[in-house]
Amino acid sequence: MGKYIYGIDLGGTTVKMGLFDSGGNIVDKWEIVTRKEDNGSNILPDIAASVEAKNNEKGISREEITGIGIGVPGPVTEDGRVLKCANLGWGIFSVTDELSHLTGVSNVKAGNDANVAALGEQWRGGGRGFDSIVMVTLGTGIGGGVIQNGKIFTGANGAAGEIGHIKVNINETATCGCGGKGCLEQYSSATGIMRHARELVSSTDEESYLRQFETEKITGKEIFDAYKAGDGLAKQVVKRFAEYLGLGLSHVAAVVDTQAFVIGGGVSKNGQAVIDVIREEYDKYVTLFALKGKEFRLAELGNDAGMYGAVRMVME
Amino acid sequence: MGKYIYGIDLGGTTVKMGLFDSGGNIVDKWEIVTRKEDNGSNILPDIAASVEAKNNEKGISREEITGIGIGVPGPVTEDGRVLKCANLGWGIFSVTDELSHLTGVSNVKAGNDANVAALGEQWRGGGRGFDSIVMVTLGTGIGGGVIQNGKIFTGANGAAGEIGHIKVNINETATCGCGGKGCLEQYSSATGIMRHARELVSSTDEESYLRQFETEKITGKEIFDAYKAGDGLAKQVVKRFAEYLGLGLSHVAAVVDTQAFVIGGGVSKNGQAVIDVIREEYDKYVTLFALKGKEFRLAELGNDAGMYGAVRMVME
Repeated sequence: MGKYIYGIDLGGTTVKMGLFDSGGNIVDKWEIVTRKEDNGSNILPDIAASVEAKNNEKGISREEITGIGIGVPGPVTEDGRVLKCANLGWGIFSVTDELSHLTGVSNVKAGNDANVAALGEQWRGGGRGFDSIVMVTLGTGIGGGVIQNGKIFTGANGAAGEIGHIKVNINETATCGCGGKGCLEQYSSATGIMRHARELVSSTDEESYLRQFETEKITGKEIFDAYKAGDGLAKQVVKRFAEYLGLGLSHVAAVVDTQAFVIGGGVSKNGQAVIDVIREEYDKYVTLFALKGKEFRLAELGNDAGMYGAVRMVME
Repeated sequence: MGKYIYGIDLGGTTVKMGLFDSGGNIVDKWEIVTRKEDNGSNILPDIAASVEAKNNEKGISREEITGIGIGVPGPVTEDGRVLKCANLGWGIFSVTDELSHLTGVSNVKAGNDANVAALGEQWRGGGRGFDSIVMVTLGTGIGGGVIQNGKIFTGANGAAGEIGHIKVNINETATCGCGGKGCLEQYSSATGIMRHARELVSSTDEESYLRQFETEKITGKEIFDAYKAGDGLAKQVVKRFAEYLGLGLSHVAAVVDTQAFVIGGGVSKNGQAVIDVIREEYDKYVTLFALKGKEFRLAELGNDAGMYGAVRMVME
């Protein structure tokens, strides 16, 4: 058992890197650029070089490294194979084998970034104290991760927890980024909320706090501020956001009967009001006794969740 | 390690009991009546007495029994506690402790009946060859079970896999048995299909093979026979059945990304046509590459699935 673990969160623009001690405490963190050119072939070598540089800087020998964990923006199977990461240019290969080869560290674990962040939140964030959570990340899109008894639920092709693409409105005509229609992500992501607010501002004459902003500058924060202040138009926007999310999470509960939902991503920065309105709508859609009264928590680790989860994978 | 395992499927009217050898082969099976009077207080003693009688009949000593598995019609937690079985009159107590006490067999495992049947099908039935399946039982209601890496996914309150109560139609005005509105069970159970066919027969003048039957006698078999023969009205009924089920299973896939769906219950007796139409609708609702092309199989064990799954729990 070594003294250090590297926790890595590989994103589309930057790689967040963390050095942790064996107790799971962060010792150092930094970022490097994600070089996507040449089908992303530089990404893992860059990460390995950055690990090597950090080892030298801190005087850490390879024997002192327990392992390396990494979250990747695409489906990853239980044995660490990536099944295409379109936005990195990657095809199908074993991330764990490759990173192990490049770093000389045998214990490498990989997971989907949303799943890994969920594990981080369950371990050290908003999901502390629960063995089983479902994390929902409300950002540009909607990511999700299912943690069961302290472990990532991966699924057959690494696509478990893809909550953003649950079809919550079969009558939708607009197309989601995935090519489908009526995905949860179209309504309850930050993008979905902002789009809805802009549509209402443009298409109605209703008085609203939101009208003081240039339409393109209405963000989730303005919407939730207006909502908290009782603004009618913002209420409509938040209501639709929460209705679809509550419905989607009721589906999730019927499948995995989790202990708690942890809500993260940019939208969750609007605090307890977000939790309250989601829970209210969720409770309307669950009718089975065993699924009622689930806990809802705000995520706490922000952009560090992925690094923590990556470290946790190594410790398992 | 003993030579025998008892596998028990406790239902609302009868208890199906099976004696298996340690290789999981059935040696004997029989049924006893489920006595629901006095809040179901006789049920477990009756089961224990029946086990005792079988031991005497076969000359089996207690030391030769590896364990007893039992499926129960209600939510059961991972540690074997029942959280109310309304239709047995049971409250909250440990089934495993109680049955262990009554039989003198220390290794007793309990699970929800639908989950246990799913385990049986994964082990010895339609899900053979897959580690992870979701089983859907289309009967009077809709039951479901999630099997992950050969084990039951129980959930926090034993309600994982309660697929029948996923809300697939938020505009429904009729009420489901659970008290909710728009549950999958309202459309895709045997009851749901028969109700829909009767409604169409009564409310339209469309020619149909189904009109030769008294309205109350139209069953799932007649509907699927008519559907296979190209009957227009039956096609409408089967289409709605499959649309809602395909939608519901697309939700399930987005959460647990299973390897295969196993379709059981009375409706599944109509064979491959059932699988084909469900798969067709499912494929319309899944857009993520990793969730497409899932396997769909018919259940094979019929009413014995619960006994097999109960035995499998003991063998784990």
